[in-house]
Amino acid sequence: MADSKKIAVIGFGNIGSGVVEALYQKEFAGLELTKVVDIDLERPRPITLPTQYLSNDWQPVVNDPEIDIVVELIGGIEPARSIQLQALKNGKDVVTANKMLLAQKGQEIFSLATDLKRRVGFRASFVGCHALIHEFQQAGVSAKKYRRIYAILNGTSNYILSTMTHEGTEFEVVLKEAQEKGLAESDPSDDVDGMDTASKIRILLNLITNSYQTVAPFPIEGIRNVTPQDIQYADELGYSIKLVGVIEQSNGVFNIAVHPALVPKASLLGSLQGAYNGTELEDEYGVVSGLVAPGAGVRPTTDAIVKDLLDITEGKDLPMPSSAEELALGNTDDAQRRYYLRFSALDQAGVLAQISGLFGKHGISIAAVIQKEAVSKDFVPLVMTTHLAREGDVQSALREVDQLQVVRAKTRIIRILNADT
Amino acid sequence: MADSKKIAVIGFGNIGSGVVEALYQKEFAGLELTKVVDIDLERPRPITLPTQYLSNDWQPVVNDPEIDIVVELIGGIEPARSIQLQALKNGKDVVTANKMLLAQKGQEIFSLATDLKRRVGFRASFVGCHALIHEFQQAGVSAKKYRRIYAILNGTSNYILSTMTHEGTEFEVVLKEAQEKGLAESDPSDDVDGMDTASKIRILLNLITNSYQTVAPFPIEGIRNVTPQDIQYADELGYSIKLVGVIEQSNGVFNIAVHPALVPKASLLGSLQGAYNGTELEDEYGVVSGLVAPGAGVRPTTDAIVKDLLDITEGKDLPMPSSAEELALGNTDDAQRRYYLRFSALDQAGVLAQISGLFGKHGISIAAVIQKEAVSKDFVPLVMTTHLAREGDVQSALREVDQLQVVRAKTRIIRILNADT
Repeated sequence: MADSKKIAVIGFGNIGSGVVEALYQKEFAGLELTKVVDIDLERPRPITLPTQYLSNDWQPVVNDPEIDIVVELIGGIEPARSIQLQALKNGKDVVTANKMLLAQKGQEIFSLATDLKRRVGFRASFVGCHALIHEFQQAGVSAKKYRRIYAILNGTSNYILSTMTHEGTEFEVVLKEAQEKGLAESDPSDDVDGMDTASKIRILLNLITNSYQTVAPFPIEGIRNVTPQDIQYADELGYSIKLVGVIEQSNGVFNIAVHPALVPKASLLGSLQGAYNGTELEDEYGVVSGLVAPGAGVRPTTDAIVKDLLDITEGKDLPMPSSAEELALGNTDDAQRRYYLRFSALDQAGVLAQISGLFGKHGISIAAVIQKEAVSKDFVPLVMTTHLAREGDVQSALREVDQLQVVRAKTRIIRILNADT
Repeated sequence: MADSKKIAVIGFGNIGSGVVEALYQKEFAGLELTKVVDIDLERPRPITLPTQYLSNDWQPVVNDPEIDIVVELIGGIEPARSIQLQALKNGKDVVTANKMLLAQKGQEIFSLATDLKRRVGFRASFVGCHALIHEFQQAGVSAKKYRRIYAILNGTSNYILSTMTHEGTEFEVVLKEAQEKGLAESDPSDDVDGMDTASKIRILLNLITNSYQTVAPFPIEGIRNVTPQDIQYADELGYSIKLVGVIEQSNGVFNIAVHPALVPKASLLGSLQGAYNGTELEDEYGVVSGLVAPGAGVRPTTDAIVKDLLDITEGKDLPMPSSAEELALGNTDDAQRRYYLRFSALDQAGVLAQISGLFGKHGISIAAVIQKEAVSKDFVPLVMTTHLAREGDVQSALREVDQLQVVRAKTRIIRILNADT
């Protein structure tokens, strides 16, 4: 057994209490809880600690030479960033669940840790993929590269889309219900506008490339514009609509995006319910595998933190981006995929011919068409899916389509991802 | 970098060729291909080796003190067993894809390896769960215990059930088609009668308990008796029928079984298509996660073997059952679950009352009933599902049901597993 490590936990909230409980009850050999810091020490908590453990000031704790590992669980940018940087400068290792900080300031933290030969354990920063990280860790050994990762990483969005699918209700209605049930934040933007998924994708990309460079901006689209109509048409075509983070790699060039997507209903991603996270990966040999795990929760997050602490204590490999290599991002226009298109067209003769003519002109081949009898006097429900097409060509065709006299609103476009598992 | 290890590959078939190719082309530092053994060296192969690598006699290779690791890829019991035991006795580590050998003789091999402090890498023996093994490896560290593992581990059976579901055809018809397409063996028994799944479950159980004791016999039922009718009724009730390996643990007592089961259609297991493997796990805290991976194939198997070789070469932890502790198996009769029951009842007044009366007498509560109008003159299609019930009680009730005058054939019973992911 390796030497015991002295641990300070900074942030004594839900996750902090879970970690403190596990450490204080000495469930794990080699992990010695030494200090617990929170600005509010009065709040009732599931565990009571002797006062000598407690402090409301992180500075002396992070500067205490006795402490070996600082567990930062307060979240947000400051003072979390200062705590981590100071801990590293003082020769300590860091374990964190702070997704936002790593997505925004990962470069600063990982590069400092690399320079100082310290470790930053961040399994807990996106626990839904905890099983993944082990694979990636191993991947660092066998130099496995991923061609493709499709990931459902935001539980709130997945819950809302699942509920919209089952109940046929509008986004705003389901969001409001979810907020009332405490399943969505009062400000839901981070979840439903795709930023949370984008943060996780950034960290995932840093992890699998081993580069700590901040990923350049990439297209991010949330689920506010997904309608029950789209869900219904997708269903008829054999697809579910999900919010998907996409990483595609070809010859070292990455295409990154977050957007709603049609995925086959009977696939791992298409059938993923509620608050679970799901990920489909294709490795460099074309071998596809999938993972499903709870996207959040005290227990899986606590588990992930304890695993990092044990790995550090036992001197095991802990994956951490440690290269300054820039990531090459491809041009989104060059991405090849299939598209779902819903047109707001008038119920007039020749509409289908005009629209499909424009697609033909741009070399885009139509895979399926659903045209139903008009429900209102004016609009005819018209949906098409394309075969594989270049995104730039589809966008060009749509600019022309949307200028047709018979088309009265911007065409709705949703990408189709052909998940395999 | 650790010292290079000299490797002998015994068995130069499909998988052997994949491994030899990866090693010979020096894709991986530290792994030095030294010898390749096969009884038939004339057969054409995707890779040609200089003759000094080749041998048709395993004995001198396994006795050669130069060799550090023996990769056994010939399959079956003998001479694979002798090769592995001899290699271990000669102080070598072993890597193998031999599922049958480990399921039947794992105790002999793992106990010898434990006594001699050698390692046996067996990731490749069930590659569909390769991602799992990493989790379990880690689990050994954090002492995570699993309450429940539901696993679809046989690609042939899953392909046959998927096809029966999509096409509504009988088992025998689909099996014959699958055999013609090369997707099922000419003797399909190992796959469709559940033995292959049972072997994988045995190895999985050894792995997660760290005990190499041969698992006592447990109920194994294959898919030959699953009918398109059952699949259709299950579908109406919201379920798919899959061949599932079950490991349930409560206070150190295990319930193990392999049988067809109803799993929710929209779950990871219920939506698993074709030749993929899928696994759902519930840990001791109730956290559920799922994994999907290709159940076979040269590439994933080769990958798994190379990972084992790298882990051995780099001195990493490699999970291997190393305890002689006996596993306690529970009484199947005490298992609590839900059941699907299809009765072969005459179309007579009072049938439903008689059958449901017997269930009431045994304290079994009915969850759903499907009774359709009779299609033939004699039989009425009658299907019930139960709420949670003790298996022994259900079996007792069915013995009485099957003796009723109005019941003309043995009632078909399929367990319902409420997969969560």
